[in-house]
Amino acid sequence: MKAPFEFYFDFSSPYGYFASTQIDALASEFGRETLWRPILLGAIFKTAGSAPLTDMPLKGAYSLHDFSRTASLFDIAYHHPERFPISTVSAARAMWWIEQHAGAPKAKEFAHGIYHAYFAGRQDIGDLATVVAQAEQIGIDGGQLTQGIEQKEVKDGLRSQVETAIGRGVFGSPFILIDDEPFWGFDRFDYIRKWLQRATT
Amino acid sequence: MKAPFEFYFDFSSPYGYFASTQIDALASEFGRETLWRPILLGAIFKTAGSAPLTDMPLKGAYSLHDFSRTASLFDIAYHHPERFPISTVSAARAMWWIEQHAGAPKAKEFAHGIYHAYFAGRQDIGDLATVVAQAEQIGIDGGQLTQGIEQKEVKDGLRSQVETAIGRGVFGSPFILIDDEPFWGFDRFDYIRKWLQRATT
Repeated sequence: MKAPFEFYFDFSSPYGYFASTQIDALASEFGRETLWRPILLGAIFKTAGSAPLTDMPLKGAYSLHDFSRTASLFDIAYHHPERFPISTVSAARAMWWIEQHAGAPKAKEFAHGIYHAYFAGRQDIGDLATVVAQAEQIGIDGGQLTQGIEQKEVKDGLRSQVETAIGRGVFGSPFILIDDEPFWGFDRFDYIRKWLQRATT
Repeated sequence: MKAPFEFYFDFSSPYGYFASTQIDALASEFGRETLWRPILLGAIFKTAGSAPLTDMPLKGAYSLHDFSRTASLFDIAYHHPERFPISTVSAARAMWWIEQHAGAPKAKEFAHGIYHAYFAGRQDIGDLATVVAQAEQIGIDGGQLTQGIEQKEVKDGLRSQVETAIGRGVFGSPFILIDDEPFWGFDRFDYIRKWLQRATT
């Protein structure tokens, strides 16, 4: 079995959301699994000397236009969140906790739900109550989760995951590592396909 | 006849160079012509609050890797320039002058030559002598060109072109406007195709 795609994303990233709807299908075209790894762009931008797209002159207006255009071209449900970008530390810690306590498939189901709630369901996933409610919808105990994500082990676990990502060169979302080869951006999916086809011939 | 693709690029931009090798073919797929418009990213970055890719932590290393990888995947000759990025004001003014005095097809031929000299021919196009030599190779009078690009009219013409670009939201290279719809990046060529196919059905 070949190594899985390592899929890094921030829950506040529209292009991360778009990627989340297609990454598993892309990986399976090449007989690969996926590992989903939530990161925190706020921490990464400090290292990378970057900023949220929508805060930048010119690029901000383009990005806002491009979010909706991309969703439409790829037939992905999208409603640009009223509050954007937001801190996604609760959602990312929750995903980390769920993976430890209920397994990776459940954590991925949770991630799909969080992304959809934020980018299509007009819910504020910066709000802990929203995060917990989303987890409860897929059978996670909300009380245990709420306590869980306050544990030092979870906070340290996520922080370490973000630091590891930075150490491997991750600077944006989505960011995909395939056999250590880095690919940044949802607009690189065709490019990944081309790269893997070349690599296997 | 439909409106031409407006293709904005900086002569120091690897992705602009990659785009220059394919933009005319892409446009002709949809029965369109192209207008080539050199810009100066230095001036644009001041407005957009941005910086050269390769100056950024993390993103810089990724970009350098991606330049060569992209060239290889798309079978484009590439040797990363020793001096990079550079000021391309002489090359851009020369292209502006050539278009006025020898027509757009000749200016495009010059642009291809400049891009190839810089990104495949190991020549320093920041050097005026290199720019003039490149023009002479396609039958332009080097003496007239050298005098020409010192004229206020040419300097103002290029400056105005860059300001117009910024006014229309251009913030990077390559940047393509199709019926005023903006597309940023060589990695958006498949996306442009998708967008035009959708637009015509």
